[in-house]
Amino acid sequence: MIIGAVEAGGTKFVCGIGNEKGEVFERISFPTEQPEKTLAQVVEYFRDKQIESLGIGSFGPINIDRSSPQYGNVTTTPKPGWSNFPVLTELKKSIDVPIGWDTDVNAAALGEATWGAAQGSDSCLYYTIGTGVGVGVYAEGRMVHGLVHPEGGHVLTRRHPDDTYGGKCPYHGDCLEGMAAGPAIEARWKVKGSELPVDHPAWEMEAFYIGEALISAILLLSPKKIILGGGVMHQMQLFPLIRDHVRNGLKGYVASSALEEGGIDNYIVPPGLGDNAGLCGSIALGLRAYEESQQR
Amino acid sequence: MIIGAVEAGGTKFVCGIGNEKGEVFERISFPTEQPEKTLAQVVEYFRDKQIESLGIGSFGPINIDRSSPQYGNVTTTPKPGWSNFPVLTELKKSIDVPIGWDTDVNAAALGEATWGAAQGSDSCLYYTIGTGVGVGVYAEGRMVHGLVHPEGGHVLTRRHPDDTYGGKCPYHGDCLEGMAAGPAIEARWKVKGSELPVDHPAWEMEAFYIGEALISAILLLSPKKIILGGGVMHQMQLFPLIRDHVRNGLKGYVASSALEEGGIDNYIVPPGLGDNAGLCGSIALGLRAYEESQQR
Ligand SMILES: Nc1ncnc2c1ncn2[C@@H]1O[C@H](COP(=O)(O)OP(=O)(O)O)[C@@H](O)[C@H]1O
Ligand SMILES: Nc1ncnc2c1ncn2[C@@H]1O[C@H](COP(=O)(O)OP(=O)(O)O)[C@@H](O)[C@H]1O
Ligand SMILES: [Zn+2]
Ligand SMILES: [Zn+2]
Repeated sequence: MIIGAVEAGGTKFVCGIGNEKGEVFERISFPTEQPEKTLAQVVEYFRDKQIESLGIGSFGPINIDRSSPQYGNVTTTPKPGWSNFPVLTELKKSIDVPIGWDTDVNAAALGEATWGAAQGSDSCLYYTIGTGVGVGVYAEGRMVHGLVHPEGGHVLTRRHPDDTYGGKCPYHGDCLEGMAAGPAIEARWKVKGSELPVDHPAWEMEAFYIGEALISAILLLSPKKIILGGGVMHQMQLFPLIRDHVRNGLKGYVASSALEEGGIDNYIVPPGLGDNAGLCGSIALGLRAYEESQQR
Repeated sequence: MIIGAVEAGGTKFVCGIGNEKGEVFERISFPTEQPEKTLAQVVEYFRDKQIESLGIGSFGPINIDRSSPQYGNVTTTPKPGWSNFPVLTELKKSIDVPIGWDTDVNAAALGEATWGAAQGSDSCLYYTIGTGVGVGVYAEGRMVHGLVHPEGGHVLTRRHPDDTYGGKCPYHGDCLEGMAAGPAIEARWKVKGSELPVDHPAWEMEAFYIGEALISAILLLSPKKIILGGGVMHQMQLFPLIRDHVRNGLKGYVASSALEEGGIDNYIVPPGLGDNAGLCGSIALGLRAYEESQQR
């Protein structure tokens, strides 16, 4: 079975094809320009690929409420031309297969639960910590949508006692994204995160903010696995620091061996799908759209 | 159809019968003693009621993982006799109908989504703010379980700038429960919450803590409705204070009319089932268990 996948990002689009095992056969990428032009490139790419279904994991905010007339639109983005653009409707004009549509991070969570670090599990959280912070929520075997869609990158965390930085989020100042995304690290330390040494105090501070967010997420949602991806998480020394902060902060309240020493190394983990996490997520969305179309 | 319901609390058990419309026909209540004695009273109550299914919403922590050998147990409670007691297994010996089993707050969320303030919705959060703080999570039409079960009463919130109180949670000190449950109010102000005047600064502070938790919950989970119950929420002046704090804190980031002035009055609301919220939740669990048994 050939499944098409689109990773629709604000900077670039990645298109590819794969199969129901999450294998990626090929991929191309091109910069995100005006929607008409970019979506025409998507259609052109898939024209001769004989895909049986398609999955799209998109930058947001997007409308993922199937009962809404705006379903499939990008909504309030500052990106020129994309605000309220009906992405899904436009693609459906030319691509006549079942199409799965969700946020890029929900797609990544689904991909990880299908073939990656949370394989076979009915529940996980997927965080990307990069230019921004995004969170995909997969619970009880379903992507969580709700009122709009999860925006867990902007949760409010406590401040690190030694931190005087004001925060970079244009909405909330010192929310998680405002304190812990790549641009916040750069603004606080006046140097790119990738140039800070691994033993710099920046990483303990970074682990504090991510850890605080994870503690509250574990308490509210009880995910079976937490996957941390994105550019900032290339700093692998963050993983043990975050795990320690979470374990110490929970204080044994949630009785599960997964959260204890030993268990937690396998609970807060990097993406199992590595660089293919995004594309595999979209393939998983496409696979699910196909399965749903068969059930009807 | 006659459905049995048990509200299994740490202080008292409420048993009742109702129907598939959420109507409650009768109820009794008795104090929670040793599990053998209390569960015998439950069995005795239902003996001649001809119930077709039963729902149990229980105090926790409990095991709600159907694949676990400990499924149906109360787990690590300090309550004498109840730690690791197999509640469900014990009841099944004498009650031979489909039995639904979940946390009291998940049951309340399901009840509110079935017949109450979130009627017909596939998503809501149910908070009880009383002796402790508990949160039930209903998302995409399912109660969220995950690793253990949601314990959202213990999320970490920021401190109110004027608050010098240290917090009452034996695990986390100043988590949400530690700062905002009834006993924390009493410890901070040296008088029971029910005796504080409605214009006392305690309520602005209380709304701050609840509001902080709701902002992060809305961002992480995007629930379609938030229901606030429990003894402390009898202070109805809290509702407008909480709504204002949430609206101001989100800063328009989540684009939904439900979160704007006007909409939010209908988004953060008291339980629609009033005093029957707990029992109706258990009836809803029983109804779901019945429906599942029919599908098999
Ligand atoms: N090795 C690294 N160490 C620390 N920060 C990094 C590293 N690589 C990238 N970043 C930061 O991550 C951000 C880019 O995140 P990335 O996930 O690659 O892309 P995006 O979020 O835009 O999709 C930048 O702010 C960059 O400074
Ligand atoms: N009207 C009220 N105003 C403020 N606090 C109240 C009120 N009624 C009860 N409480 C507080 O709520 C707590 C009891 O919560 P409740 O939901 O009634 O029971 P429980 O949580 O034990 O099931 C107590 O700490 C009590 O002080
Ligand atoms: Zn923010
Ligand atoms: Zn606590």
